[in-house]
Amino acid sequence: MDTAVVVQPWKLAALAEVIGATLEGDGNIEIHGAAPLDRAGAHDIAFLSDPKYRVHLETTQAAAVILSPKESAAWAATKARLLTPNPYAAYAKAANCLYPEPRPATGVHPSAAVATSARIAPDVSVGAHATVGEHAVIGAGSIIGAGCVIGEHVTIGSHTRIHPRVVIYPHCVIGDRCVLHSGCVIGADGFGFANENGNWIKIPQIGRVVLHNDVEIGANTTIDRGALGDTIIEENVKIDNLVQIGHNCVVGAHAAIAGCAGISGSVNIGKHCRIGGAAMIGGHLSIADGAVVAAATPLFTSIEEAGMYSGVYPILPHRQWQKNAVQLRGLDAL
Amino acid sequence: MDTAVVVQPWKLAALAEVIGATLEGDGNIEIHGAAPLDRAGAHDIAFLSDPKYRVHLETTQAAAVILSPKESAAWAATKARLLTPNPYAAYAKAANCLYPEPRPATGVHPSAAVATSARIAPDVSVGAHATVGEHAVIGAGSIIGAGCVIGEHVTIGSHTRIHPRVVIYPHCVIGDRCVLHSGCVIGADGFGFANENGNWIKIPQIGRVVLHNDVEIGANTTIDRGALGDTIIEENVKIDNLVQIGHNCVVGAHAAIAGCAGISGSVNIGKHCRIGGAAMIGGHLSIADGAVVAAATPLFTSIEEAGMYSGVYPILPHRQWQKNAVQLRGLDAL
Amino acid sequence: MDTAVVVQPWKLAALAEVIGATLEGDGNIEIHGAAPLDRAGAHDIAFLSDPKYRVHLETTQAAAVILSPKESAAWAATKARLLTPNPYAAYAKAANCLYPEPRPATGVHPSAAVATSARIAPDVSVGAHATVGEHAVIGAGSIIGAGCVIGEHVTIGSHTRIHPRVVIYPHCVIGDRCVLHSGCVIGADGFGFANENGNWIKIPQIGRVVLHNDVEIGANTTIDRGALGDTIIEENVKIDNLVQIGHNCVVGAHAAIAGCAGISGSVNIGKHCRIGGAAMIGGHLSIADGAVVAAATPLFTSIEEAGMYSGVYPILPHRQWQKNAVQLRGLDAL
Repeated sequence: MDTAVVVQPWKLAALAEVIGATLEGDGNIEIHGAAPLDRAGAHDIAFLSDPKYRVHLETTQAAAVILSPKESAAWAATKARLLTPNPYAAYAKAANCLYPEPRPATGVHPSAAVATSARIAPDVSVGAHATVGEHAVIGAGSIIGAGCVIGEHVTIGSHTRIHPRVVIYPHCVIGDRCVLHSGCVIGADGFGFANENGNWIKIPQIGRVVLHNDVEIGANTTIDRGALGDTIIEENVKIDNLVQIGHNCVVGAHAAIAGCAGISGSVNIGKHCRIGGAAMIGGHLSIADGAVVAAATPLFTSIEEAGMYSGVYPILPHRQWQKNAVQLRGLDAL
Repeated sequence: MDTAVVVQPWKLAALAEVIGATLEGDGNIEIHGAAPLDRAGAHDIAFLSDPKYRVHLETTQAAAVILSPKESAAWAATKARLLTPNPYAAYAKAANCLYPEPRPATGVHPSAAVATSARIAPDVSVGAHATVGEHAVIGAGSIIGAGCVIGEHVTIGSHTRIHPRVVIYPHCVIGDRCVLHSGCVIGADGFGFANENGNWIKIPQIGRVVLHNDVEIGANTTIDRGALGDTIIEENVKIDNLVQIGHNCVVGAHAAIAGCAGISGSVNIGKHCRIGGAAMIGGHLSIADGAVVAAATPLFTSIEEAGMYSGVYPILPHRQWQKNAVQLRGLDAL
Repeated sequence: MDTAVVVQPWKLAALAEVIGATLEGDGNIEIHGAAPLDRAGAHDIAFLSDPKYRVHLETTQAAAVILSPKESAAWAATKARLLTPNPYAAYAKAANCLYPEPRPATGVHPSAAVATSARIAPDVSVGAHATVGEHAVIGAGSIIGAGCVIGEHVTIGSHTRIHPRVVIYPHCVIGDRCVLHSGCVIGADGFGFANENGNWIKIPQIGRVVLHNDVEIGANTTIDRGALGDTIIEENVKIDNLVQIGHNCVVGAHAAIAGCAGISGSVNIGKHCRIGGAAMIGGHLSIADGAVVAAATPLFTSIEEAGMYSGVYPILPHRQWQKNAVQLRGLDAL
């Protein structure tokens, strides 16, 4: 398949080994790309994960297919295949082999402003116009994109990729193998003010943001530093674009938060939770491990046990909605 | 009217010609600005589009008024006027004449980091601290604002204005006469992960974002690159601030998407659709040409035909809302 | 308490004087930090504001406690205390003494691009890779962070702190003692287009954004310039992250707007209003002084008097929600 990214060809046998799948067929086939079953070309590898795409198996032009042993047994064709119980995960691994993300040149761009007390491992890349503050530490193999601002005393682990124009406020901590997309802001002040006779007085926000290993943060997402104590994003958490995480939240390992979600302050999101896009979680709540909050759902009570929770107004043609809304406003009187 | 922008005076006759309106009255009047009917001064042009402002016709100080032939016929005054069936569009054209957006100086700012293989038309402006990657192409008359990061192999058409601090990831394509506001991020990775035993594995996002001609993108809006294949924004689409567009969406020509809307992955939005502010569109849906989704509406089923669709909880004083919410939670049992 | 920020020790008596509290106990105690009652160490000051934390009074290790005279009278311990009717506001003031925000070095970083006609007070700090446009004015003691883009003719008051990578479009006005967090965009074009035969024509946005004194703007928040006339944020307004404010809004003094809220164009928000997180306010509405809009509430009618207003769908386990939603869709027929 034509893609924006340069492909790295792999022999099918080598791919099978790396992704942990069982090879059936010719291991010498050279794979030049990955593609959906119905769009794959003669040198692509495809995969079957969702049974609704099974129909494309008969006609696919793919060189090889990743699929489950059961799907394979039911498929008459003799095409090369890689068998695995989790074809989607296997496809992810194969695609990472075929499309390795290009790395910018190692070294500090001459236009970058790096403080003399910053400690930067020799195989790091710091892009044009980036700023690295005093006493910052950047681990081996990490990439700081163009225009990033890394505050004083920030610590960044190894093999982390920070895309252009990210800001990390002073003292925050970023783990190993994290990915931070452009425009995200890590460690701005939480929204903390005391009211005195109608006037707001700012409360200093003196905690940090701590991202554990293998965290990915989407474009223009914001994660506030703790007021007292830290905001913590545990390992392998994936956060999409334009998400707001308030001060002193703890997001449990392997949770996923989709785009436009808003998490108020001091929320405790359990491990393996999934928060849908544009969901809104009220302050000081706890969400049990493994719970799923549906997209666009506002949540104002804690969730005590795993399961899926929803609170979304059903859509209707506008006229019908108007009639229902009138009834709904008087529901209690009714 | 006093404005932040320097005005370019026009003779009324010339303005009439450029905006395609019929002149009645003295074409030699010099127009020095545009303003609402009730705030216009003696050298301003005003317009009447919404009949509820008709009351201001009698007292307006404007030098001339843009209005429909019907409104004009019903207006006793003998003031200069420009007649057109669409006064609001005519006003837009007149205002573009009177307030031409200033252009920065042509040329590449000495602090910009432009790759040697980038191809930049001679009449382009590249601002301070901008970065332009290898093999990028920037068309005639386009403006790259201060601090922008234009990735490798990005193609930008002609007469496009990219405001300061925009990021365009590698390989994306931007059309002619587009406007991209500050902080928007074009082409960050889509939110694609495969789950293996509770652990998230990243799926490389190897498609692009393609913006056709005359697209406008608001401040801090994010548009993700395709996973496989492209995310496509067709011509004349207008997208407001803080909107998220997921990977592999197609937004049809002339659609408009208001602020804070979230569009999940693989959504197909038809031509001329209007998506209200803070609407949330679920993944893999299709929205028919010309459909309107009301503001704050969550949409989780496809829309098959044009028309307006709503799904918004009606607001009430908090105590009444609480009583109704109790009934609503038990609605099915009721 | 260990924090990310360097503490400035204070004698308790001096602190009492500055925050306007009555000292009881040894004024010579040196305070080295602030912390919650249950986490305070032997040199920390703690506070009691919410009665539910009263239980921690008995066991706190704090050197001194800020609390109300009434709570103090009911507390048997003889620990040093600072008495005030508003302990939370007093704590805010004490924390500002103990944790003064560090200032970068005064002066213009050599990599900054400052126009020759810009007027910059001598005690200002302009960070690396910042851009300051022609005729911009920056008042005494203000800080312009790394990578900021300050447009032409922008005026910034004194003692304002602009964090890295903020964009302020030309002609906007920022007051004294404001705080603008990273990634916010002040003055991008409002979302104004006229439709002519299905085609969108841009309406020039020729107003400004004006922030009065003591305003705080969160990370990646966007505030659009007026179409004609200005968008105005009055004094002491506090706006959280990822908020969108449309063109020509007026936000009254001392209002607070929480994260992810969307305010459409020409909205008039009264003084002392509170807008909850992810609330969505429709265009051209007025909200009375002192009104509170609950989080996640969509508002499409004006609010005439103070009080709290809600419109949030109650959450349920997904199966129950599905059943209720069916009934709700047919509510009017029912």
